[in-house]
Amino acid sequence: MVAYQSGFGHTAAVARSVVEGAKSVPGAEVTLIDVDTLPGPGPDRALPDAWMPLNEADAIIFGCPTYMGTVSAGFKRFMDHTGALWFTQAWKDKMAAGFTNAAGLSGDKLNTLVAMSLFAAQHSMVWVSQGVFMEEGGINRMGAWLGLMTQADNAPPEQTPPPEDHETARRFGRRVAEATARWVRGRA
Amino acid sequence: MVAYQSGFGHTAAVARSVVEGAKSVPGAEVTLIDVDTLPGPGPDRALPDAWMPLNEADAIIFGCPTYMGTVSAGFKRFMDHTGALWFTQAWKDKMAAGFTNAAGLSGDKLNTLVAMSLFAAQHSMVWVSQGVFMEEGGINRMGAWLGLMTQADNAPPEQTPPPEDHETARRFGRRVAEATARWVRGRA
Amino acid sequence: MVAYQSGFGHTAAVARSVVEGAKSVPGAEVTLIDVDTLPGPGPDRALPDAWMPLNEADAIIFGCPTYMGTVSAGFKRFMDHTGALWFTQAWKDKMAAGFTNAAGLSGDKLNTLVAMSLFAAQHSMVWVSQGVFMEEGGINRMGAWLGLMTQADNAPPEQTPPPEDHETARRFGRRVAEATARWVRGRA
Amino acid sequence: MVAYQSGFGHTAAVARSVVEGAKSVPGAEVTLIDVDTLPGPGPDRALPDAWMPLNEADAIIFGCPTYMGTVSAGFKRFMDHTGALWFTQAWKDKMAAGFTNAAGLSGDKLNTLVAMSLFAAQHSMVWVSQGVFMEEGGINRMGAWLGLMTQADNAPPEQTPPPEDHETARRFGRRVAEATARWVRGRA
Repeated sequence: MVAYQSGFGHTAAVARSVVEGAKSVPGAEVTLIDVDTLPGPGPDRALPDAWMPLNEADAIIFGCPTYMGTVSAGFKRFMDHTGALWFTQAWKDKMAAGFTNAAGLSGDKLNTLVAMSLFAAQHSMVWVSQGVFMEEGGINRMGAWLGLMTQADNAPPEQTPPPEDHETARRFGRRVAEATARWVRGRA
Repeated sequence: MVAYQSGFGHTAAVARSVVEGAKSVPGAEVTLIDVDTLPGPGPDRALPDAWMPLNEADAIIFGCPTYMGTVSAGFKRFMDHTGALWFTQAWKDKMAAGFTNAAGLSGDKLNTLVAMSLFAAQHSMVWVSQGVFMEEGGINRMGAWLGLMTQADNAPPEQTPPPEDHETARRFGRRVAEATARWVRGRA
Repeated sequence: MVAYQSGFGHTAAVARSVVEGAKSVPGAEVTLIDVDTLPGPGPDRALPDAWMPLNEADAIIFGCPTYMGTVSAGFKRFMDHTGALWFTQAWKDKMAAGFTNAAGLSGDKLNTLVAMSLFAAQHSMVWVSQGVFMEEGGINRMGAWLGLMTQADNAPPEQTPPPEDHETARRFGRRVAEATARWVRGRA
Repeated sequence: MVAYQSGFGHTAAVARSVVEGAKSVPGAEVTLIDVDTLPGPGPDRALPDAWMPLNEADAIIFGCPTYMGTVSAGFKRFMDHTGALWFTQAWKDKMAAGFTNAAGLSGDKLNTLVAMSLFAAQHSMVWVSQGVFMEEGGINRMGAWLGLMTQADNAPPEQTPPPEDHETARRFGRRVAEATARWVRGRA
């Protein structure tokens, strides 16, 4: 399960590459969800059925752009909507991971990933690090560790982020799917 | 200028104590604004006149609850609305400071303050630390440094946070107002 | 494996409670190591044999006091000593978790846990969150999520942190050992 | 006052550029100090005279490489040595700023700057943000806000970081010196 929010389509494009990588793991079922489409809790604080795929997933990979130093407002709204799930710790022991895209090379992308990892920790999830080492050719060119970082110029999502960022995204997606498969196999 | 967002009224109550402390500094003019009331940018990306008091202030103290590990969604929306101001660096060299309230003693309040300080840094502001040392009687009982931390139980804002947190808030407001006065005096 | 650094003995006492909890999981073999006793790399950058238990562990729980806003200098030295292990990603896919103790209720303990989680991520480890929900009686009284937080007054380690913090530490140790057992079982 | 720690000379070279920029401000007296040369506190916890220049400075700019996700061990030792100064809040209301160098584009440089800003906040200092906007030609090419970020390849300090990073460093040094001059002028 990849749950993302995107502003101008760059993060959505990265999300698709993450999904592609995750799907390359035998047995992995991967769903992509734009959190802007998820309705908030009703008057009884319960979340609508649209949240079911998230609640049933073994892992959730979070993704959004870095705006003004942390997660986008749209993604934060999604985070705050999970208050009732937090209270019952409904997502406990799911796997989690995160990615973010921004225009700057460093920008404050790290802070977005930290915010996602703290969010996952509040839900008592288990956090899978990025795990794709730097290689010639621009693999993990940002030098990112906690999660995936990509960088997009001021151009359409077809052109940017560059191919090496999408390849890093695919490897990252594969890594998280492999870790999740292992985690599921290990269930007592 | 104190710009805050509040969920159940506790942060709003702390904001009023911060204002009270700030106003105790001779010459300080302090305005309180609930950022939920600020409209976003229009189609031309320009911000409505309601933003004028913020744009003209010498200092802005940011405040919001800590929800799911960082700033509240409402406060994040306000942050993202400042994109055009960021692009022209319109808030450059204003003073900034921050406060947050949460139910947990530690919770992830620090991450909220870090997010606020990075937001202020993106605007090239100057950050005033909390500056109120721990004292017997519960002054700065959280042991907070980057900004003010208060803690509220599950009770109405009239009862919680406790009086010592409000007193810490007043001292914090005074400190920021004094620093701002000094900063204004120093203008070339 | 619990790798800790302690200043005045409080963190060491918490480390023993974490070990106790971890050992309560059937099959768990848990070793406690004071990282101050670990020699640094030799002239060939290789690490001495004393590091073997760490290299062979399925999981490493990191612990140290929060000093001046982040991990203690002694613990940071240990972190920097792992440079060669990082380069070969020798700790990849081990489980990791973290704990910290400080005098302040909040202090900057969160930043210590974030530093530990980034360190683990650089080693491509998998991070187990604290996972012990707040309960009456002071269990997880700090409201900590990313890792375990305890708080000690200015008194001997026999008296402080309080018993509820030690009980939280035991449950945290058990949780990490259970997650590790599951992770080991899931190996392909 | 620029207080830095350097591993292989790159951070030292950046520190010299920061000093150069700071000195370009009329009236600014700037001293460069390698914190590895500073002895720790004596048995009475008092700091030796070598610390005087730091204690008397109006501003301290902190700098070190990012190693394993945060400040270098050498710099952390310096931080921990200031415990007695913290207790008396001897550095209260000094200006502070920070810079870091690393091999990765993003790496975890942000976390180093956050650690420095929390350290400054514990000392109740006032934090000056980076304040040099991105420009064609590589000025602030990292997209850094909280402090200065530079990036060095695996080559001697004469060759890397590139000239644009050193120019960014000079502008950053000038900015902090100007802010300090204003802060000093504003003293009541």
